[in-house]
Amino acid sequence: MKIVCSQSDLKTNLSLVSRAVPSRPTHPVLGNVLFQTDVETQRITLTAFDLSLGLQTSFPASVSETKTFTLPAKLLNDIVTRLPEGEITLLGMEDEEEEEENFTATLVSASGRFRLRGMSAEEFPSLPEISTTEALKVPVEALIDGLSSTLFAASAEEAKQVLTGIHLTRKEDSLEFAATDGHRLAVLDTTTEGIEGATEGFAVTIPARALRELERMIKTQKEGAVVNLLCDEVQVAFELDSQRLTSRKLEGAYPAYDQLIPNQFSKQVTLERKQLLNSLELVAVLADQQNNVVKFSIDDDNQQLSLSVDAKEVGSATESIAAQITGESIDIAFNVKYLMDGLKAFKGNEIQMQLNEASQPIIFTPLGGLKMTYLVMPVQLRD
Amino acid sequence: MKIVCSQSDLKTNLSLVSRAVPSRPTHPVLGNVLFQTDVETQRITLTAFDLSLGLQTSFPASVSETKTFTLPAKLLNDIVTRLPEGEITLLGMEDEEEEEENFTATLVSASGRFRLRGMSAEEFPSLPEISTTEALKVPVEALIDGLSSTLFAASAEEAKQVLTGIHLTRKEDSLEFAATDGHRLAVLDTTTEGIEGATEGFAVTIPARALRELERMIKTQKEGAVVNLLCDEVQVAFELDSQRLTSRKLEGAYPAYDQLIPNQFSKQVTLERKQLLNSLELVAVLADQQNNVVKFSIDDDNQQLSLSVDAKEVGSATESIAAQITGESIDIAFNVKYLMDGLKAFKGNEIQMQLNEASQPIIFTPLGGLKMTYLVMPVQLRD
Repeated sequence: MKIVCSQSDLKTNLSLVSRAVPSRPTHPVLGNVLFQTDVETQRITLTAFDLSLGLQTSFPASVSETKTFTLPAKLLNDIVTRLPEGEITLLGMEDEEEEEENFTATLVSASGRFRLRGMSAEEFPSLPEISTTEALKVPVEALIDGLSSTLFAASAEEAKQVLTGIHLTRKEDSLEFAATDGHRLAVLDTTTEGIEGATEGFAVTIPARALRELERMIKTQKEGAVVNLLCDEVQVAFELDSQRLTSRKLEGAYPAYDQLIPNQFSKQVTLERKQLLNSLELVAVLADQQNNVVKFSIDDDNQQLSLSVDAKEVGSATESIAAQITGESIDIAFNVKYLMDGLKAFKGNEIQMQLNEASQPIIFTPLGGLKMTYLVMPVQLRD
Repeated sequence: MKIVCSQSDLKTNLSLVSRAVPSRPTHPVLGNVLFQTDVETQRITLTAFDLSLGLQTSFPASVSETKTFTLPAKLLNDIVTRLPEGEITLLGMEDEEEEEENFTATLVSASGRFRLRGMSAEEFPSLPEISTTEALKVPVEALIDGLSSTLFAASAEEAKQVLTGIHLTRKEDSLEFAATDGHRLAVLDTTTEGIEGATEGFAVTIPARALRELERMIKTQKEGAVVNLLCDEVQVAFELDSQRLTSRKLEGAYPAYDQLIPNQFSKQVTLERKQLLNSLELVAVLADQQNNVVKFSIDDDNQQLSLSVDAKEVGSATESIAAQITGESIDIAFNVKYLMDGLKAFKGNEIQMQLNEASQPIIFTPLGGLKMTYLVMPVQLRD
């Protein structure tokens, strides 16, 4: 068997699928990448799969026969990234002297040869097939907006189950993305046209880890590209041209987050996002020493928002920002990290904060641009 | 007390001295930076000292009185780097209500105020004074050449004592830098004019850790600057303008490394450094799986150097490079990491390798440019 391909194609595609190779594989073959060559289409398909997340991609190559085999992902990736640009030849042969499952590939470059021991493709688990052909079509821009506005708010604790995912809901003309870890909630309703398929009310929760890989995969796509989302009872698949990402769904009811967002607010503050973010980053240096708590003093009389941190033994910090304030003055406290996470995910500059009492959630929304809502639960002020 | 200075001056100088603040101070005051304000010179001097490495620097400021105090280095650095450019005001006051050693500074910026609790300067240990006025004068370029050509070869194991340092020897018109960890040796004899002071044969061993900080400190200096090196029985100090670095010396006899370098060689190989480095980086991927051993096959007949790695179960790699070879063909093996370290520190492209037998050291030298010698001990080939 002989394959000839470009170093840059092999490098790009290997590094893409390598993200689904577990660092400590439960079975040796999962540390490998599956190669499928097709003599008719003259393409190579690469697959990696950690039994939860699967990544598949294909690219053109000169291929002498239709064949499947696996090679160690990390080693191959480390070699190919270091090879000079140009043609790479991959020669494969069954190791007939030893057991049948042994397969050896020789990679030939301009200045050297690398012999790598692979494993039979038979042991490599198949990527899940999705038993539906009805796809939800989502333009790449909408998907990027949705993911970048919510992924940061998903829980990182495995035990929190559905909260480790992003919840997607099909609305009349849009797709709504939501993430919450119980302390804050980020919701984005897409504004991009071109979302098609799936009936209103269709909903699915997908692990944030898989969606971070999806975000990485689609970031380099050209404008106007459309991703197909396929779902069955257990699995989801995202398809875009020759790339495919599969993941198990997260089971269990997602919180009815709409009910968390108040309908009415007694106070409203309009201010510059970057100025607020800079001030938060400054007082965070001291908040870091004191449970990350920052106090907001919203001063209606002076039309000023003051942020303050009292880190007892260490010191204290105060920052003041001019703001347009309506409603009575109030003191309310938050975890400074939650605020910074959300403000970094916003895009435009002017934002609005809406709130009621010091024990009730605050809502951040951008003025203009995306339809994003970021809710943060306050913490109790200790005096 | 009132100090007014620019954010950029305070930031630059704080981040410079902060490198001598221990991450886990044995005494709380060592986690602080010493401020010394001088009303006559209108300057602030900053000092940090971990009892081995000391760093001191000064810069102009508007200063209301001559005073010494200390402030927590990390917190202050984190705040100052996040402040916008412009003027910073530092107000200080003794905390009279509490014990005498309490000192509080208030940092005032355009949008906020930070109160930080400091400590009395009395507890801060003095930087060592060097009991000599005779300095060895070394142009910055010579110092940078010497350090960048040898620092990588010093031992990282504390137990290796003198081998954790760089050995400096005053030659007739130059300064020789040497470092060895017992497996390889790097020597640079400066070629820059302008080295003055100290008698021929003067030698000192200085901890690599202090010299890495010196390298960082002088990297941004303008061409033509000259560093003063002062030495007494126990300490060394490097002085450049308003900056000062002190370190204890390493005690004990430094190995007579000159005797390790053979006078005669039976084989010589001339080749391109970058090509050799690229090939080493490629085969290192597999060598990493097998004790880092790479075999050099120097082939006089074909005027070719082949690098090979046999990582048994995993695979194997061969790279070939054209080279000008004199002397009989030979196989000799090395730790691939030692070779890569050295070749990265060389500057020009063409290099020469000189060697005798497979059990004897190999010497790398650049053709043209710096007077650098890099010796690597071979490892035994197992067949």
